Amino acid sequence: MSIAEAGEFGLIARVVARLENGPTTLLGPGDDSAIVAAPDGRIVASTDVLVEGRHFRRDWSSGADVGHRAAAANLADIAAMGAVPTALLVGLCAPADLELSWAEELAGGLSDEAALTGASVVGGDTSASPTLTIAVTALGDLGGRPPVLRSGAQPGDVIAIAGRIGHAAAGYTVLSRGFRTPKALVEAYRRPVVPYEAGPAAARAGATAMIDVSDGLLQDLGHIARASVVGVDVHTNTFEISGQMRDAAAALGVDPLQWILGGGDDHALVATFPAEAVLPQDWTVIGKVHESTGVTVDGRPWGGPVGWDHFR
Amino acid sequence: MSIAEAGEFGLIARVVARLENGPTTLLGPGDDSAIVAAPDGRIVASTDVLVEGRHFRRDWSSGADVGHRAAAANLADIAAMGAVPTALLVGLCAPADLELSWAEELAGGLSDEAALTGASVVGGDTSASPTLTIAVTALGDLGGRPPVLRSGAQPGDVIAIAGRIGHAAAGYTVLSRGFRTPKALVEAYRRPVVPYEAGPAAARAGATAMIDVSDGLLQDLGHIARASVVGVDVHTNTFEISGQMRDAAAALGVDPLQWILGGGDDHALVATFPAEAVLPQDWTVIGKVHESTGVTVDGRPWGGPVGWDHFR
Repeated sequence: MSIAEAGEFGLIARVVARLENGPTTLLGPGDDSAIVAAPDGRIVASTDVLVEGRHFRRDWSSGADVGHRAAAANLADIAAMGAVPTALLVGLCAPADLELSWAEELAGGLSDEAALTGASVVGGDTSASPTLTIAVTALGDLGGRPPVLRSGAQPGDVIAIAGRIGHAAAGYTVLSRGFRTPKALVEAYRRPVVPYEAGPAAARAGATAMIDVSDGLLQDLGHIARASVVGVDVHTNTFEISGQMRDAAAALGVDPLQWILGGGDDHALVATFPAEAVLPQDWTVIGKVHESTGVTVDGRPWGGPVGWDHFR
Repeated sequence: MSIAEAGEFGLIARVVARLENGPTTLLGPGDDSAIVAAPDGRIVASTDVLVEGRHFRRDWSSGADVGHRAAAANLADIAAMGAVPTALLVGLCAPADLELSWAEELAGGLSDEAALTGASVVGGDTSASPTLTIAVTALGDLGGRPPVLRSGAQPGDVIAIAGRIGHAAAGYTVLSRGFRTPKALVEAYRRPVVPYEAGPAAARAGATAMIDVSDGLLQDLGHIARASVVGVDVHTNTFEISGQMRDAAAALGVDPLQWILGGGDDHALVATFPAEAVLPQDWTVIGKVHESTGVTVDGRPWGGPVGWDHFR
């Protein structure tokens, strides 16, 4: 059955049936607005859009995969402030002939990914559109902590990362060359594994700046460098390149460092910490903040791609 | 200049330059997330998507018009809970050849409409897309009051409305027949005039249920009737039909009651109040809640269209 056959209210009923309310949901879907607990007295909020053909392909990813990825992209932005996600709102624009089951799977993926953080899908909207588009807004709570901004890095800080890096980009390259394996890389592209708890943990450990790697490590570190008016240097010998990634890179004729330094979509968290800070579990040092400006790799400018421009 | 020529970060810089931070914005655009004051300890949140060709046409509405309308549709959902809007987040999906000036005007319209309520645009995201799509999330604060849900209407309550009704639908009909006047109706379609303050005022006056009229008065009253398990009856002799609307209806061969009862997009607020309540300024009684179920007009079923299905 298509979503047009189900009708707007039929679609909404089926989608809502796939959602589960969490502890922070005071009023879930079904009224003009949702109501979410905001015990901190401040709310952290972020929006990301995913457009078919640009951010996902239905022949590469299931509805559930896209739901997981759309949720992860937004939840990671909340974690990157040092906050704990509480809610998602979802706008779904879809061709009238979209299978209802795809929309239901999408809702299930969104809900399941949110549940990993304790958050829930609390509301949304739907419309017909020629282009399948998913707009997600995530909300989160700071738990009384100051937010970790992009602008607080200091010369002498270490740069550290939590989560996988380069895996999603490798999976994307694999899929775009027409392959379906190695499965671990393809799955990393389909469903990022985001270390959500590493965000608040970094805040508690004194992180001075933080960002989620959505567009590419060097590009996203560039945002920290510019906002903090510092230089950052990444040390490539700190990256463990798995055998699987190395083999895939060799087979596809790619330098795996291009995936690691320029690939987005893993939604790892990268943060700066004072040199004397005790890094929490899951965080690995990958470089150093210095005076001066810009982003370097092993002390030199990087010649490869640094990331993604959404209009180029 | 097109947005592709400006590039993603050029577009964002130009758009952000059109925004103004309000008193509830603790951290505006530029980091992974925004931070918004939530003094109530609960946050009210709602999402609406607008798709070109379905919710707006660029030959009918300017970028600023679309911005005002996109903001109004969302801010009205916050007001309909009895809450005061605090923030908007905006996802913009646009063809690469969209004029940068159109996106800037859109941002200006969103920001100006939000400012009417004290809210600000605090964040967003952009992507290229074949279909121009605007996804807006609004946040709001309840100021310590219980929310006004759809489910609280009681037999014996009066039904009252605040704001214009039928004007936007009349303007839509005028435009769709190829005319550009009467200007008042066309403008009502382009930029709804929403009585935002009437929402919290209704909550303070003891409103038992409330909704914003986005899809059509009878359809939206039907949501209250179903959620409250009551019947509602609308009295057509309570509607003042302006001379301009009457003339336009006669010229176009339309029953103006179709615009009033079935037309959406004005984002009037409709609420139920105990019979003894003193209605706040701007609220006019248009009907009555009774036992039984369903929506009637002057005691009888309505034969005309009741509203809008977004997939039909």
